[in-house]
Amino acid sequence: MKSAEFTVHTGSRPGLFDLTDQCDRFVRALGDGVLHVFVPHATAGLVIMELGAGSEQDLLDTVDRLLPRDDRWLHRHGSRGHGADHVVPLLAPPWATIPVVGGRLTLGTWQSIALLDTNVDNGTRTVRLTFLEG
Amino acid sequence: MKSAEFTVHTGSRPGLFDLTDQCDRFVRALGDGVLHVFVPHATAGLVIMELGAGSEQDLLDTVDRLLPRDDRWLHRHGSRGHGADHVVPLLAPPWATIPVVGGRLTLGTWQSIALLDTNVDNGTRTVRLTFLEG
Amino acid sequence: MKSAEFTVHTGSRPGLFDLTDQCDRFVRALGDGVLHVFVPHATAGLVIMELGAGSEQDLLDTVDRLLPRDDRWLHRHGSRGHGADHVVPLLAPPWATIPVVGGRLTLGTWQSIALLDTNVDNGTRTVRLTFLEG
Repeated sequence: MKSAEFTVHTGSRPGLFDLTDQCDRFVRALGDGVLHVFVPHATAGLVIMELGAGSEQDLLDTVDRLLPRDDRWLHRHGSRGHGADHVVPLLAPPWATIPVVGGRLTLGTWQSIALLDTNVDNGTRTVRLTFLEG
Repeated sequence: MKSAEFTVHTGSRPGLFDLTDQCDRFVRALGDGVLHVFVPHATAGLVIMELGAGSEQDLLDTVDRLLPRDDRWLHRHGSRGHGADHVVPLLAPPWATIPVVGGRLTLGTWQSIALLDTNVDNGTRTVRLTFLEG
Repeated sequence: MKSAEFTVHTGSRPGLFDLTDQCDRFVRALGDGVLHVFVPHATAGLVIMELGAGSEQDLLDTVDRLLPRDDRWLHRHGSRGHGADHVVPLLAPPWATIPVVGGRLTLGTWQSIALLDTNVDNGTRTVRLTFLEG
């Protein structure tokens, strides 16, 4: 099976991290099928979206508004509001799948594959890519 | 690989568009596996849900309430509130997968495969179907 | 194709139900690939998250806050607020996929595969597991 892992440095602030280049390179020469992207973390997720033109901050603001980093959370480990990070997978799941045709992702013009990491207590994340032949 | 694209006319109002018939026809005669559905658009997503009995409007109202079409968005291209459309993929991802057994989708009685398009500036959408053999 | 169904008793209260053990056992001896999990229900979904430390209740409270069980819903069958259950798939989709390497799920330390069922009118749910070889 074609499967690979790589690491993303996400630092200590909430952010969206572009994985499209790594995904592009991985599927090159793999023919036709589906790329599976997975993050083995309980406080991170994947979003396929436009990056740029303000949408990254719009999305981060939305997560903050829907999952406020206040004292409402029963989960109280880590920094204040960290309980919110554990609900992130309800919005952004840790898996994503993208068709591949002739070794190329069939993403739309404005789509990028992004890692959403709101967890300020974990600065390094792992991403696993797996290719399913069509 | 079995892969196909088709076009959906989504018009100039937010809506949910039933893709189940096209998916059904695509998997017929393809045996056992998983159907992959993908929309190559940054302002549309997929939802597997009951269509009818008011739930379509309930879902559209929910998207409107969680992502209000007002002036809060940094992304300011297009119609007023269009920035909200760019956060839709946080709720409804552009991919979906459904098991296929003997050429038939294993959807539940009340499940349909729907395209969610809130973007009033783009009236035509592409959908890509891919079959992964089991 | 390797595919199997099993039943989960979800009772008459909203809850999260751990499917990880059943998934683990299913992929054992199946080598490398991707596990596909699917629930053929319009009012249930899947979440890969940490179970325990309060996060289950945090997630259920979040669903309740984002989709309040009041009289706003057009869908009016079943118990009061049941219309909310029909919008659950916007947050928690009925499908999930997890890489499998050497017969083992590549879940992170804190990740579990959970069924989210807020529907108090349906006490039994079906889950379908499908293995896609890598």
